Amino acid sequence: LDAEAMAAARERHLTLTKPPGSLGRVEEVGARLAGICGECPPPVPESPAVLVCAGDHGVLARGVSPWPSEVTAAMVANFLSGGAAVNALARTVGGRVSVLDVGVAGDLPDHPLLRSAKVRRGTNDLSRGAAMSREEAARAVLAGAHLAEELVESGGADLLATGDMGIGNTTAAAALISSFTGRPARETTGRGTGIDDATLALKTRVVEEALELHAPDPKDPLGTLAALGGLEHAALSGVVLAGAALGVPVVLDGVVSNSAALVARALAPDAVGYLFAGHRSAEPGASVALEALGLDPLLDLGMRLGEGTGALLAVPVVGGAARVLSEMATFSDAGIEG
Amino acid sequence: LDAEAMAAARERHLTLTKPPGSLGRVEEVGARLAGICGECPPPVPESPAVLVCAGDHGVLARGVSPWPSEVTAAMVANFLSGGAAVNALARTVGGRVSVLDVGVAGDLPDHPLLRSAKVRRGTNDLSRGAAMSREEAARAVLAGAHLAEELVESGGADLLATGDMGIGNTTAAAALISSFTGRPARETTGRGTGIDDATLALKTRVVEEALELHAPDPKDPLGTLAALGGLEHAALSGVVLAGAALGVPVVLDGVVSNSAALVARALAPDAVGYLFAGHRSAEPGASVALEALGLDPLLDLGMRLGEGTGALLAVPVVGGAARVLSEMATFSDAGIEG
Repeated sequence: LDAEAMAAARERHLTLTKPPGSLGRVEEVGARLAGICGECPPPVPESPAVLVCAGDHGVLARGVSPWPSEVTAAMVANFLSGGAAVNALARTVGGRVSVLDVGVAGDLPDHPLLRSAKVRRGTNDLSRGAAMSREEAARAVLAGAHLAEELVESGGADLLATGDMGIGNTTAAAALISSFTGRPARETTGRGTGIDDATLALKTRVVEEALELHAPDPKDPLGTLAALGGLEHAALSGVVLAGAALGVPVVLDGVVSNSAALVARALAPDAVGYLFAGHRSAEPGASVALEALGLDPLLDLGMRLGEGTGALLAVPVVGGAARVLSEMATFSDAGIEG
Repeated sequence: LDAEAMAAARERHLTLTKPPGSLGRVEEVGARLAGICGECPPPVPESPAVLVCAGDHGVLARGVSPWPSEVTAAMVANFLSGGAAVNALARTVGGRVSVLDVGVAGDLPDHPLLRSAKVRRGTNDLSRGAAMSREEAARAVLAGAHLAEELVESGGADLLATGDMGIGNTTAAAALISSFTGRPARETTGRGTGIDDATLALKTRVVEEALELHAPDPKDPLGTLAALGGLEHAALSGVVLAGAALGVPVVLDGVVSNSAALVARALAPDAVGYLFAGHRSAEPGASVALEALGLDPLLDLGMRLGEGTGALLAVPVVGGAARVLSEMATFSDAGIEG
C-alpha cells in the first residue's frame, strides 16, 4: 500500500465539507483505496465484477451436506441464465458476473459468462487423503489469478468481488481456517446450507479427522491447500493475489472467500492490504478467519449463501468511499470556515 | 402492512434457488417490502430519493455546538451544488437529492433541488421556552409530508431516504428521544459533529433543563415536537407519515431521523412497519431510539454525519431484497430438487 496516498486521503478527509471523522469506517475504506491505487483521490470503481469460482468435493461422500454434488453444476447453470441470488444482487449494484469452473464434477455448457479451466472433476475426500495434488492446487490458483487479470487488464473490472459455489465447500473452508489459525474444528465448522445437529457433529468430526490425518503446516500454504482445499478455494486465493498484484481492491464474500484469503496471505502477506471484508457470514469460521486477517466486515446481515452475494452488497460502501474523496467539496470550495 | 403478501414472500423465499434463510436479514427486508406494497414479489425500487430537511436552532445560543448557524445555509448551498457527502453517496446508489427548507435562518437561492417551505427562521431556544408553536410544528410536519407525496405521486420516488441538516439539531433529537423513551439525557445526548467533553457536559445539561422545563407528554406528540423539536425533525416525521400513507418504504438515516420516527410513531403507530433503519449512527441517542422503535439497523459503520448519508448506503440492501424476490429462479425453474 502506498503510505503517502493513504496519508493524503486522511488529510483530504479533514478538508471536506463534513465534521472530521463523521463518515466513520467509510473514511478508512477511502484511505485504503487511496493506498491500493497509489493516488488520492482514488478512482471511483465503475466496473465491479464478481468472480464466482466453482468446484466439487469428494468429502461429500462422508455425508457432510444433504445436497448432492449435482447441485453445483445446476447452480452454475442458474448463474449463467441469470436466475441466482448473485445475479439479482449484481444487477442491484451494477456488477458483472463471471463464473470460473476449476473443478465442477459435471459437464457445463459453453457460455460467455463461464470460463472453463477445469483442473479436475471435484476433489478427493480430504478426510481420507489429499484433496488434490500440489500441482492441481497450483493450477487452480493460477486459473483464478488469470481470470482476474484478464478482467482487470481488459478494462472489464476495476473492483473484484469474490464468490464461490461448491456443495461441500464449507467443510474444506473450515479445515483451511483451522489450519491457518490453529483454532479447533468446533470453532470453525458451521451449518453451511443449514444442516441439523447430527450432521453438524459429523461434519465437525470429519474436519477434525482431516486435520489429524494431514497435520497441515500453515507455512506450506500450497501443501495445505492440496491436502484440505477445494479447487474453488485455490482459485479464489489466486483472485486475491491477482487483485493485490494489479492494485485493484478485492471485496471478500463469506467463509469460503475468507479461507482463501488466509491461503493468499500465507503466500503473500501484503495481499491483505488490498482486501475488504464485504460481510460477516453467519458461518462461525468466517469470524475466526476475519479476526485472523485483521479485517472488520462492512456488513453483518446474517447471510450465509456464498456466490458473492455478501460481497456485492458491500460494493456501494466501497464505491461511496471513493466517491466521497473524489467528488466532495472542501470547506474552502464551499466558502465555509472549517 | 399486508400480512398475506408478507406470508407469500416468506413462502416464495423457500422456493428460490438458495438454502432456506441463507440471505439472512435480506429475506426479512424482502418480506416487509411485500407487506408495504401489498404484493409479492414487491416491485424493485428504481427511483430512490433522499429528502434532506433543513432548519436552524435557537438552542445554539447555549453553546452546544462549535459551528455557527450560518453553516446550515452554507451546507444547503453545498447540497444544491452537488458537493456534499449526501450528493456523492446519492450518485453511488442512483438516488435523487431533494432539499426541503422548513426553517433555515439564512436566505437560500431558488434552485430546482430545493423546496422552500420556511415555517420560520430557526427555532427558539428549547431550553428557555417552546422551540416553536404547535401550529408551526404542524406546518413543518405537513411540509415534509407534502414534498414526500409530490415526489412519490409524480413518479419521482418509489423509495424515500430521510436526511437532515441543521447546526444544533442533535440537541433537539436527544431531547425528543428522551421524551418518547423516558431515557435520561445522559443516554441520549452525544457528541454530534464531535464536541469535546466540556461541551458534551453542557449539552447534556441543556437537554436535562429542557426536559425539566417542558415535562413533555409523549402522548401529545405535536406538543412535544413544538416544545423540543427542530423544524427539520417535524418535517421528517411528516416524510415518514407520508411514506407510510402512500405505501412506500422509508429508509431512516441517523439520530435526527430516528427521533422524527419516534414522533411519527406517536402520531400513527402503524407507520413503523414502513421504516427501515438504514444504519446505526454513532450518536448514542440513535441506538436508544432504534431500540424503542424495534428497528435493527442494516449498516453499522460508525457514521454520524446526517444528511441522509447512512440511509443512502443502505438503499442497495433494500433494493437487493426486492430484486431477490422478483428476479430469482425457483428450484423448479432451475430443475433442482430442493
